[in-house]
Amino acid sequence: MLYDAVIIGTGPAGLSAALNLQIHKKHFLWIGSPALSEKIQKAEKIENYPGLPSVEGGQMAKQFLSQIQEMGISIQNAMVNTIMPMGEYYALMAGNDFYETKTVILATGVTSVGVLPGEEALLGRGVSYCATCDGGLYKGKNIAVISTSARFDHEVSFLAQLAQNVYFFPRYPVDTALGSNIIPMNTKVTGIVGEQKVSAVTCKDGSELPVDGVFCLRDAISLNTLLPGLVLENGHIVVDRTMATNLPGVFAAGDCTGRPYQYSKAAGEGNVAAHSVLHYLHNFQ
Amino acid sequence: MLYDAVIIGTGPAGLSAALNLQIHKKHFLWIGSPALSEKIQKAEKIENYPGLPSVEGGQMAKQFLSQIQEMGISIQNAMVNTIMPMGEYYALMAGNDFYETKTVILATGVTSVGVLPGEEALLGRGVSYCATCDGGLYKGKNIAVISTSARFDHEVSFLAQLAQNVYFFPRYPVDTALGSNIIPMNTKVTGIVGEQKVSAVTCKDGSELPVDGVFCLRDAISLNTLLPGLVLENGHIVVDRTMATNLPGVFAAGDCTGRPYQYSKAAGEGNVAAHSVLHYLHNFQ
Repeated sequence: MLYDAVIIGTGPAGLSAALNLQIHKKHFLWIGSPALSEKIQKAEKIENYPGLPSVEGGQMAKQFLSQIQEMGISIQNAMVNTIMPMGEYYALMAGNDFYETKTVILATGVTSVGVLPGEEALLGRGVSYCATCDGGLYKGKNIAVISTSARFDHEVSFLAQLAQNVYFFPRYPVDTALGSNIIPMNTKVTGIVGEQKVSAVTCKDGSELPVDGVFCLRDAISLNTLLPGLVLENGHIVVDRTMATNLPGVFAAGDCTGRPYQYSKAAGEGNVAAHSVLHYLHNFQ
Repeated sequence: MLYDAVIIGTGPAGLSAALNLQIHKKHFLWIGSPALSEKIQKAEKIENYPGLPSVEGGQMAKQFLSQIQEMGISIQNAMVNTIMPMGEYYALMAGNDFYETKTVILATGVTSVGVLPGEEALLGRGVSYCATCDGGLYKGKNIAVISTSARFDHEVSFLAQLAQNVYFFPRYPVDTALGSNIIPMNTKVTGIVGEQKVSAVTCKDGSELPVDGVFCLRDAISLNTLLPGLVLENGHIVVDRTMATNLPGVFAAGDCTGRPYQYSKAAGEGNVAAHSVLHYLHNFQ
């Protein structure tokens, strides 16, 4: 099944795009966290969003969620690992699932999480972003798991059922033990090393820990990794006034296209991106 | 007094810009209709504005107005007739008032009202956009008045007190007589003629009506006339991703920058324009 569009990201940009594609009865998939943007949920008070005077983040998120429900739009709770250009269309891997789409709207936001030295070079050779996809390769082996959010705890548990030992590097406070073979580490991973394959991770405390694989579980993947060939500038996706990227059929909206990082800017760009998708689909063979 | 910014237009783009300049405590003037955009007031139902699920235009306008009030922002009820570049700053005429500002945000929307043949050539030589400013020049003379909205009725009455006869071409149904010397016309003006000065208007019924002056009272002035030198493309203001126009210190947002004509796009662009103004002011000598 070939979708008209896949929207990646559930912040205001993704939401705005989804509303417009739904109104135009397009066959689209919206992928991201069903709880919407964590940034919004945590925002104390927003004074400059037209139409919602002096609104708290939680209240804004509630408004967004009720709007989605009212419009009959659903969110696919997943994380896209990679997008592959297939000529006239794009193929996406999200967890274990595979999707094909005529167009893509990138509304991924920005994250301050940097790519580790060695990570890109060893991707697919010991470095993975998806427990479900690649966990099976590490039965009885030793792995490192870097996680930026408790959202990924179930993936960590899943990996612990397969691996011999899981060296766990959470970027958040962990209260409870996730499994007897999950070893919480009191340092940070600073790099991934290996020749043909991952052999170890280097740590901030100066130690080197031999592992067979590294899982990087993050809310967002670096854009270079997500979609090779996408033109970036200072870490932001380069777009024109129609929100078109350098890749035909790929549009972007919101913080990932650059500053100012603002809800109304993101919502506006999501709207424009959706209209550009409609225009693109109209000419699609 | 030199303002930091003047925002022209009270649709969602102007509103969004105003909210942001107010938060940043800038000294700005917001000019337009205090009733906000007529388009919004009349909108039946808006489904795609993030955060306001399935909202009627009237309700949205109410939200906007309460937000303005809450933030302590006021609107100058006026229409800008002309903007003049003065080197490092801009001078504006709005009605009889004169303002100076470091930056301008054009959020004028789009109007379907076209410029009449002869109008631009005879501007200031018998063609006027402002009864208050130029009415005095037509004491005891015959004038044509073209009006797009009952909002301008008081200007028509004012002109009737000065002129001998007012040939009145309203673009809306007129119920009551505005003055004994106001002659309602059952045709449309198709052009303005004259050599050094206006001598007549041509009408759709084929007739030619000799007049000494023509007042064009419209909700918006053509952008070429408003700010000479502004680069347009297909009637829209050309802007970059920062909403900068070709003129330094002049930014634009909303429908006047092009399609899609959407509230959230306008609000987003107003936000970006305001941030670009902040950046510009930071470097202002």
